[in-house]
Amino acid sequence: MPILIIGATGTVGRAISKDLETGHDVILAGRNGPDVKLDMTDSASLLQTFQNIGEIDAMVVCAGHVPFRPFGELADQDFRDGIENKLLGQVNLVRASLSTLKPGGAIVLTSGILADEPLIGSTCAAAVNGALNAFVMALAAEQARRLRINIVSPGIVEESIATHGDYFVGFEPTSMSRLVAAYRRCLFGPISGRVIRV
Amino acid sequence: MPILIIGATGTVGRAISKDLETGHDVILAGRNGPDVKLDMTDSASLLQTFQNIGEIDAMVVCAGHVPFRPFGELADQDFRDGIENKLLGQVNLVRASLSTLKPGGAIVLTSGILADEPLIGSTCAAAVNGALNAFVMALAAEQARRLRINIVSPGIVEESIATHGDYFVGFEPTSMSRLVAAYRRCLFGPISGRVIRV
Repeated sequence: MPILIIGATGTVGRAISKDLETGHDVILAGRNGPDVKLDMTDSASLLQTFQNIGEIDAMVVCAGHVPFRPFGELADQDFRDGIENKLLGQVNLVRASLSTLKPGGAIVLTSGILADEPLIGSTCAAAVNGALNAFVMALAAEQARRLRINIVSPGIVEESIATHGDYFVGFEPTSMSRLVAAYRRCLFGPISGRVIRV
Repeated sequence: MPILIIGATGTVGRAISKDLETGHDVILAGRNGPDVKLDMTDSASLLQTFQNIGEIDAMVVCAGHVPFRPFGELADQDFRDGIENKLLGQVNLVRASLSTLKPGGAIVLTSGILADEPLIGSTCAAAVNGALNAFVMALAAEQARRLRINIVSPGIVEESIATHGDYFVGFEPTSMSRLVAAYRRCLFGPISGRVIRV
């Protein structure tokens, strides 16, 4: 049975997909597919999408964006958009997957280092990532007999230094291979309810 | 100049108000006042409310509720309601207060132990509390030269055992005096960006 990867065309998603497609049946999903197109913020349509996909062994989500601006310049709606996209989007995917994830299956979500470390402009990212880390801890306990759920919290990856390096001054970049290994550990190891900081 | 207390008629808010009103000018606010009526989920009206209140030394928020049900029984909208109320409500209050909080002033928010510990039914509470803890860490760094902001994360208080004790099996109850002391420490101590777990 397959592993569903959401955000498969992103920087991290591509690396995870490439790593898993040897030896696993993967379904690559996201706004632009390529295998399945879906909108993680549209909870009603997701249920149908997951029914169409059918039973899955595991789901990896590495999708979602947040606004990055000082709090004084973040309008109410900007902050809400970040919550809606990266937080509620991932929560929606978990809810939708409950109906088609096989018993004993695994879910891996993605948060980020801004849950733990501040940057100027990171208030919404902090809130969203902090929410996701705690959500996974709570859901893992609640669903302990049914599934495993973990979350990977990446720092800046080497591939993103060109675009985001100016914000992450003094942060040690993570190699993509270390990051992919963290997703593997969450998928195939015995852990549940864990935040894996890479 | 005054200390604005939001959620002043709740169990914790009453204790904080009583403690602070000796020696401080307090303004008691909330859905039912008594001094100022406000709706923390209505960000547009809050700006005007804060203008009407005028300059303040500090703001304490001990308000906000979340749904408490197993994730499989929490509809999309239930989860969203919790985010809207306790998370975005407190974020809205911080945004509104920036215009009238005096330089060097203090903000104290409230999260809760369910950011760190799971119960059956606590997924939304976990997300909201985890988001608030991280938000405060990020905002404190961003606004370090302008204000202090901290957050108190209470466990179950002795006064709530009758109503909520069945959920918190084996959790050691906190006395209200210890909890009030944590708010005092956030208000009057030198700390910023801290999560004070009581």
